[in-house]
Amino acid sequence: MAPIRTQWTRLIRFVAAETSQVHLGEPVDRWQDVGLASHKKQTIRAYEIVGSALDPAAQVTNNVLTVKHLLPPLSREEIGVVRCLGLNYADHAAEANLAKPRYPILFYKPPTSLIGPDAPIHIPKATQPAEKHLPDYEVELTVVIGKAAKNVSEADALDYVLAYTGANDMSFRYHQMAVSQWGFSKSFDDATPIGPCLVSAQAISDPQKLALKCTVNGRVLQDGNTSDQIFNVRQTIAFLSQGTTLLPGSVIMTGTPKGVGFVKKPAIYLKDGDQVSVWVDGGIGTLVNDVVEEGKTPVKAKL
Amino acid sequence: MAPIRTQWTRLIRFVAAETSQVHLGEPVDRWQDVGLASHKKQTIRAYEIVGSALDPAAQVTNNVLTVKHLLPPLSREEIGVVRCLGLNYADHAAEANLAKPRYPILFYKPPTSLIGPDAPIHIPKATQPAEKHLPDYEVELTVVIGKAAKNVSEADALDYVLAYTGANDMSFRYHQMAVSQWGFSKSFDDATPIGPCLVSAQAISDPQKLALKCTVNGRVLQDGNTSDQIFNVRQTIAFLSQGTTLLPGSVIMTGTPKGVGFVKKPAIYLKDGDQVSVWVDGGIGTLVNDVVEEGKTPVKAKL
Repeated sequence: MAPIRTQWTRLIRFVAAETSQVHLGEPVDRWQDVGLASHKKQTIRAYEIVGSALDPAAQVTNNVLTVKHLLPPLSREEIGVVRCLGLNYADHAAEANLAKPRYPILFYKPPTSLIGPDAPIHIPKATQPAEKHLPDYEVELTVVIGKAAKNVSEADALDYVLAYTGANDMSFRYHQMAVSQWGFSKSFDDATPIGPCLVSAQAISDPQKLALKCTVNGRVLQDGNTSDQIFNVRQTIAFLSQGTTLLPGSVIMTGTPKGVGFVKKPAIYLKDGDQVSVWVDGGIGTLVNDVVEEGKTPVKAKL
Repeated sequence: MAPIRTQWTRLIRFVAAETSQVHLGEPVDRWQDVGLASHKKQTIRAYEIVGSALDPAAQVTNNVLTVKHLLPPLSREEIGVVRCLGLNYADHAAEANLAKPRYPILFYKPPTSLIGPDAPIHIPKATQPAEKHLPDYEVELTVVIGKAAKNVSEADALDYVLAYTGANDMSFRYHQMAVSQWGFSKSFDDATPIGPCLVSAQAISDPQKLALKCTVNGRVLQDGNTSDQIFNVRQTIAFLSQGTTLLPGSVIMTGTPKGVGFVKKPAIYLKDGDQVSVWVDGGIGTLVNDVVEEGKTPVKAKL
């Protein structure tokens, strides 16, 4: 089995100023943090990619387009299934006062929860007031599967990875902790940012050496490194693929390091008007999202 | 909001003997248990339905086809998201020695876990030996959502139901109970039978009066009624749709009554060569599936 080698190094999905249509592209400035640039309304230009994000043979052309609006790097339909790990950093398990798990803790989110870099995080009325429901941030390295993975060994696991991206695994702690299982608390519509771009697996030779941070209103609250993962990406893919096909396009959010809001003293919860940034190294970049409580602020139409 | 009224009362999806293609149909014999008939290799004839199972206006024609092979009533792609409730029958919570939940306990399965009436339940090598992993049966009334449901009231909830069907929410108790959360233990490929047909919501005016049974090798092990559900279908849809869109085609498996294998003394687990039948009343019928442990019995190619 050979690793997946794409024609692109970084892939974005966007509405182009020139066409008002959805395109894929490779950023012209290879060092640009596209999420941060979009937030600052800086120009992002991209070589158009013709084909599908899931097709390694999709071609990078020399047609340059201008980004009007960044979208999640994969559509909800392409992703299909979102797997997430709980308690996958030793420092986070310790701060939550929970034992280190013996096996990866798996839960799912529906694709309807996903949003892109330029969309607001939506706090539904059902989870207000925030003081009760504790909407909380979680920066996570996210794996995109590129070919169907079943019963994969740890040695081969990275050969099934198409790319890496970032995510903010927004969690509503009341339903997670006090009431139900994790499924409901992590599933709300339009609350989980993913992106801002895909970075091909060939450009990230070691996913266990990536710094990642979460910043709320300019204050750094999480500052970790994937080297602290309890189950690394190889182990996670090998475990999850036991008797279970991980389909191309499906994503795995690999857990969050310490610093989440509910363990802070006093606890930090996200509320209307906050701005949350999650950043992952390796060229993935920053997702900057405004928090909007349904019924409070009119959602700014950005598209 | 008006209830969904389909042109059909019962819908099956099948490969036809006449065409060797996939079709939808309404069984000609309105009293026939199509799952049982298929298992007994009795003839099933159906009026062809032209259109999609999710389109209430799909038309029942007078073209009669013969079933060669029954498929799940919806494809994996049409279903997209599978929600399941845990501990939703008072008698089952009591036998499992667990408190009655205050809110519905939600977990997910990936669509890759679903199979139809004529396929074997696949026990992967990763969950062998069965004595350790305890593969267990769970008969469940299953709801098919017919129009996008978000923030739905209990009063209106049934208006979003397209149809009902049955399922066997196969569970591997070792990973469920001792090791991880429920996600991993309920997700294995080709292990969750669904069907055998859809019964339109207009044909089941009260989903809380349905008997349901599970039989293993001819011995009745579960014998319950949906009247014993802790959260009825109206409450379940209202709860799950809070801030969360339930898309058309998505299914909700509504929990299982008492009698599951892991609480029996001695415990009953499913093993190679067993035959499991789950039956739900109201015209839904019986799913009869052989259990096949990977690597032990050659899987009988039925298609």
